[in-house]
Amino acid sequence: MTSCSEPLTASTLGEHLDLQRRRVEDALAAYLPRPEADPSAGRPERLASAMRYSVLGGGKRLRPVLCLMAAEACGGSWEAAIPAACALELVHTYSLIHDDLPAMDDDDLRRGRPTCHKAYDEATAILAGDGLLTLAFELIAKGVSPDSSALACVRILAEASGPDGMVGGQMADLQAEHRALDQHEEGSLAELEAIHRRKTGALLKAPLQMGAAIARASDSHREALERYGKAVGLAFQIIDDLLDVEGDETKLGKRVGKDSGHGKWTYPRFLGVEGSRTRARQLAHEAVAALAPLEARGERLRDLALALLERDS
Amino acid sequence: MTSCSEPLTASTLGEHLDLQRRRVEDALAAYLPRPEADPSAGRPERLASAMRYSVLGGGKRLRPVLCLMAAEACGGSWEAAIPAACALELVHTYSLIHDDLPAMDDDDLRRGRPTCHKAYDEATAILAGDGLLTLAFELIAKGVSPDSSALACVRILAEASGPDGMVGGQMADLQAEHRALDQHEEGSLAELEAIHRRKTGALLKAPLQMGAAIARASDSHREALERYGKAVGLAFQIIDDLLDVEGDETKLGKRVGKDSGHGKWTYPRFLGVEGSRTRARQLAHEAVAALAPLEARGERLRDLALALLERDS
Repeated sequence: MTSCSEPLTASTLGEHLDLQRRRVEDALAAYLPRPEADPSAGRPERLASAMRYSVLGGGKRLRPVLCLMAAEACGGSWEAAIPAACALELVHTYSLIHDDLPAMDDDDLRRGRPTCHKAYDEATAILAGDGLLTLAFELIAKGVSPDSSALACVRILAEASGPDGMVGGQMADLQAEHRALDQHEEGSLAELEAIHRRKTGALLKAPLQMGAAIARASDSHREALERYGKAVGLAFQIIDDLLDVEGDETKLGKRVGKDSGHGKWTYPRFLGVEGSRTRARQLAHEAVAALAPLEARGERLRDLALALLERDS
Repeated sequence: MTSCSEPLTASTLGEHLDLQRRRVEDALAAYLPRPEADPSAGRPERLASAMRYSVLGGGKRLRPVLCLMAAEACGGSWEAAIPAACALELVHTYSLIHDDLPAMDDDDLRRGRPTCHKAYDEATAILAGDGLLTLAFELIAKGVSPDSSALACVRILAEASGPDGMVGGQMADLQAEHRALDQHEEGSLAELEAIHRRKTGALLKAPLQMGAAIARASDSHREALERYGKAVGLAFQIIDDLLDVEGDETKLGKRVGKDSGHGKWTYPRFLGVEGSRTRARQLAHEAVAALAPLEARGERLRDLALALLERDS
């Protein structure tokens, strides 16, 4: 086998994703070092521990991997995209910690392990989340260059995860849950999509935008990746809803059937299982089509969009 | 009175601070518009309302005012510093919302009104805080120029408010409170200062650093402002502790005597009231001395350091 970057046979998508995930895991571990035993150090040990527990406890790393892949698809390097990719995962993790809190979704289990507030305590979980969100922006400011790309990443991530994005979507989701439970309100597909677009979609589109910014992609390539991200984000959520109906609890690492028990609005509820699967398939093909301008460089992302349809966890 | 920037008589410090505060209030209100009645808009109405309630409900605006003053002291303009100044206030406000939560300090009153989770609900308060923290970085990314100054501000704010700064300090404070209450541990002045440096000091030093960055100050001026910020931050906290012992509840807008009731570590506890007042006075004079390199432009900040000694709220 040659020692340069041209393997004799192309890796499969699975192998490629494993490679990208390893890069992300190594970087995350480096950004969250083990706590010092010294209590006078800047970061209290328990806080550092809780942050590590939540971030390094597994996860698909879909958002950072999308960011690395987007950068490479635009001719950039994964190394240049690593700080931004990790920032995305820190933001995603903080959102899970806060969503799991008693006052919010009140979950004891996440990825098959006790949630942060159960493993530590609620105050530590609130602060660990706050710390991770803040650290995400620090990583970008210190790690992305040039300045214009770094600022673009700060803007994209802040807009995607803020009160008009992810946080707004979580608020809307909680409100919808109350309306479904307490008022037996039917809801509509349009409302459900408005929630998903913000609660999960924004942080699945942001990686593509950030990867493009880091690779200093052309407007045409950036727009292609945005369209891809929007379609893939929605498809991902539909599959998520389908897995909750049909999925294997062991593989998912969380209880299934939770959604229907709560009267929660989901895609299957509005479109049925088959209708939902059809919609997801449509979106995956939209995503593939969107990447035409990227030509051969878009291949991995195209394969990924189709692979998401087959996920079982 | 002439219509240019040279008044016939110089305004007093009080008038100057009022002017700076008005600039900040106007900008904050513009950054947090009234919620749209349209439920499909990006930001849910209740979330927007809670964010406004917490930010626009009053406050000394010390951090943003320090930022504006630092920029002007380095020959920059307050207009250029406004987005960063407001970002500081959003971060300060988010920290208060989260600190007040039941799992944290569990406070019902703040600035004489119900805390965010009491006025709304706990989930909304958690998300309002998250939203404000995220929005702070958005404001900087979009409002500060050039890019190098904007990135410097992102870095400074993230470091000051993150797990090695404010969040770490809050964690350390909660842990110290448990040790004081449950284990009747005496603590030490060194430990108390390590908590204050992070919990409150970092976000009082950051405004000076950010103002300097925006004004593209020389290293000498930047360092002078950092020394000032560090000294003033500590003096501020000592005065805070003293007000809790000696202060007027109506003026403060919160209960007094809370600290001693909790066995909380404070400056008076370690240095006595007189010793604390002396230490605060020393620090205020250190702050004044630190600004020598700024010459005449440092006058307002020097006056402010001395004025902080006299505060009663």
